Amino acid sequence: MKHNRFARRMAGMSASEVREILKVTERPEILSFAGGLPAPELFPTKELAVQAKALLEEEGIRALQYAPTEGYLPLREWICERMNTVWGSQVTPSEILITSGSQQGLDLTTKVFLDEGDLVWCESPTYLAALGAFNAAMPRYEEMVTDQDGVILDGLEERLKKTPPKMVYVIPTFQNPSGRTWSMERRRGFMELMTKYGIPVIEDNAYYEVRFDEVEYCSLKSFDPEGLVVSLASFSKVLCPGLRVAWVAASPEIISRYIIIKQSTDLQTSNFNQMLIYRFLKNHDFDQRLEQLRDTYRIRRDAMVAALEEELPEGVNFTRPAGGMFIWLEMPENIDAHALLQRCLKAFVAFVPGFTFYPENGRRNTARLNFSNLPPEKIRQGVRAFAHCLAEEMEARQPQAALSAEK
Amino acid sequence: MKHNRFARRMAGMSASEVREILKVTERPEILSFAGGLPAPELFPTKELAVQAKALLEEEGIRALQYAPTEGYLPLREWICERMNTVWGSQVTPSEILITSGSQQGLDLTTKVFLDEGDLVWCESPTYLAALGAFNAAMPRYEEMVTDQDGVILDGLEERLKKTPPKMVYVIPTFQNPSGRTWSMERRRGFMELMTKYGIPVIEDNAYYEVRFDEVEYCSLKSFDPEGLVVSLASFSKVLCPGLRVAWVAASPEIISRYIIIKQSTDLQTSNFNQMLIYRFLKNHDFDQRLEQLRDTYRIRRDAMVAALEEELPEGVNFTRPAGGMFIWLEMPENIDAHALLQRCLKAFVAFVPGFTFYPENGRRNTARLNFSNLPPEKIRQGVRAFAHCLAEEMEARQPQAALSAEK
Repeated sequence: MKHNRFARRMAGMSASEVREILKVTERPEILSFAGGLPAPELFPTKELAVQAKALLEEEGIRALQYAPTEGYLPLREWICERMNTVWGSQVTPSEILITSGSQQGLDLTTKVFLDEGDLVWCESPTYLAALGAFNAAMPRYEEMVTDQDGVILDGLEERLKKTPPKMVYVIPTFQNPSGRTWSMERRRGFMELMTKYGIPVIEDNAYYEVRFDEVEYCSLKSFDPEGLVVSLASFSKVLCPGLRVAWVAASPEIISRYIIIKQSTDLQTSNFNQMLIYRFLKNHDFDQRLEQLRDTYRIRRDAMVAALEEELPEGVNFTRPAGGMFIWLEMPENIDAHALLQRCLKAFVAFVPGFTFYPENGRRNTARLNFSNLPPEKIRQGVRAFAHCLAEEMEARQPQAALSAEK
Repeated sequence: MKHNRFARRMAGMSASEVREILKVTERPEILSFAGGLPAPELFPTKELAVQAKALLEEEGIRALQYAPTEGYLPLREWICERMNTVWGSQVTPSEILITSGSQQGLDLTTKVFLDEGDLVWCESPTYLAALGAFNAAMPRYEEMVTDQDGVILDGLEERLKKTPPKMVYVIPTFQNPSGRTWSMERRRGFMELMTKYGIPVIEDNAYYEVRFDEVEYCSLKSFDPEGLVVSLASFSKVLCPGLRVAWVAASPEIISRYIIIKQSTDLQTSNFNQMLIYRFLKNHDFDQRLEQLRDTYRIRRDAMVAALEEELPEGVNFTRPAGGMFIWLEMPENIDAHALLQRCLKAFVAFVPGFTFYPENGRRNTARLNFSNLPPEKIRQGVRAFAHCLAEEMEARQPQAALSAEK
């Protein structure tokens, strides 16, 4: 078939680098910090087995038939209750659309907002699979530089005046990949600017409740008088990803468009899966489960931070996330994380180079390490191997300097 | 929010008319031929309850974790086996991608093939939700005229020479909405043309196995030496729609692009749902179940055909489908099915006007009637009410003629 038989967007599409790395790291002998997998031993398999059977026996016909695009109303009501009590939002069930994973929220966002060539602002770094979804519309990207408190606001208003973006995409809480959380001051200041210029804000809250430390934060919806914020969230990280149930929360004007687009995208998210999750939430203590998950991940985060502090060579910085699943490393400028990865794989340890997480100007000396999917002793073992490889790589990269110092 | 904040494609998007009609017809007092719902009493709820519990107990972690985009390999192997033995195809598991319903197959098709302004050929009439999915890319449509044997081939080659389409979309077997099935001769002739001009062919096989009568047919893939055919199919109509498990079968060159695009669309279809369907297929007799479904639908089709023959006024033609879920009506030219629908709703019977099923030049005097979702006695009762309303509408539309005849 001739290449031009395909849509133009396909020319820029390739399988995700992370996905390709994950294929290599599936080998059981590899200690992998590469994926973004939740700890499967925390999945409530037994409870879901009981609920699934009861659901099919009691409401099987409803669960297995076609259902409204918006999603299962009792689940949308539960989500509202949660968002309004725990997240500090003010949403109603009619402002919630159930999606097939949060990735679908990103795909629907592309369709609702983006024409070819439109400008999208993202954090630098940002979630690479969001870029993958947006790329279907072939937009342009500009980055917003970040520090440990989130997006740096200086200079943003000048840019808004000159060339305002069609939308901005941000992950203010326990960001993937950096693990960073925006301060309340930044959240407020950012939304003041976006409100002033009427820019739609896509807020990715996939990790919102995966919090280990006391830290103050709230949804950007709390500073959204004009209804500009589209909030994406998911059960994948707090319950399990395999059921593919997530949601979008937005003002009536925006959510109505998401619903229309979802209808032609996949009609609806599995009603069975939605009803199953609702039954689980109704019959079990979600907060207790969440505490268990937080305790487990806190121990793993602590193990990774301690091991990195102990093992890493001088000149490497890393984040200490208060939640989420990832630590972000900034290594010396002359380190290429792709070369380091090759060295690490030989030592049976894996991670994801940070380059692809940048919308532009990717930095080759960065890396993302996941801590949610391995027990503490494996984390320590993996970090030791990683640090050893990094030290070797740093040495290998400085032969001239080393030699000239010897002279 | 300003209207131009949204993507241009949103201007042409509205909630599906069928969906809006379905909302009205949800009222229990209405006899509805409007939807396209399978008979829920045939859903294997008890069997799935047992399998779901066993699956979560035995393989819960795998079912609830992230999984490869391509889909669950044993299910893809089962699909290949089925397609190669029953459908007469020649496919391998690596040519199968599991999708979240067949509607997602249409969405992925849009992304893989369509740029703005591209020309798509469809049957006239065609499946309206396919147009909904394609509209995301803002293509142009041209229709291929059909008769009882499928697409009429006369004149197609002239058009292929002049302005070849980017792709064609067809439903050769038990078409929604017309119920028609292409003859073998038309299938062969159509594929000869498409092969000669190298046009990708999207073949929608959603109803492929929902056959009541002996009729010869095969997938267009049987006449596809160049690997141009993308075959969409689903478990929705033969098992249940609520699990949202369907598939795309295509040559390696094409399926690899569908996989890349699905990755950024929703990562994967629920692994749990895929494994659940596979367990059901492995542990139960699918063919026996299919026979039961065919017997049930045949009785309903027969009841509707008999009632239509008996009750309809002169001058109305309708199809006698050998499979699928729909009968298509062509009423006198001066009848507007939308006005008829309003009259019918007052008589507590509903259907879908045919107008929206046309890619262009919609015919207002057509209607789609579903027979899969009501028992025979309700079908007879509904057809009587429908025929009565149609007779009234025909009379109301000819006052001048009637009056002048009286003079």
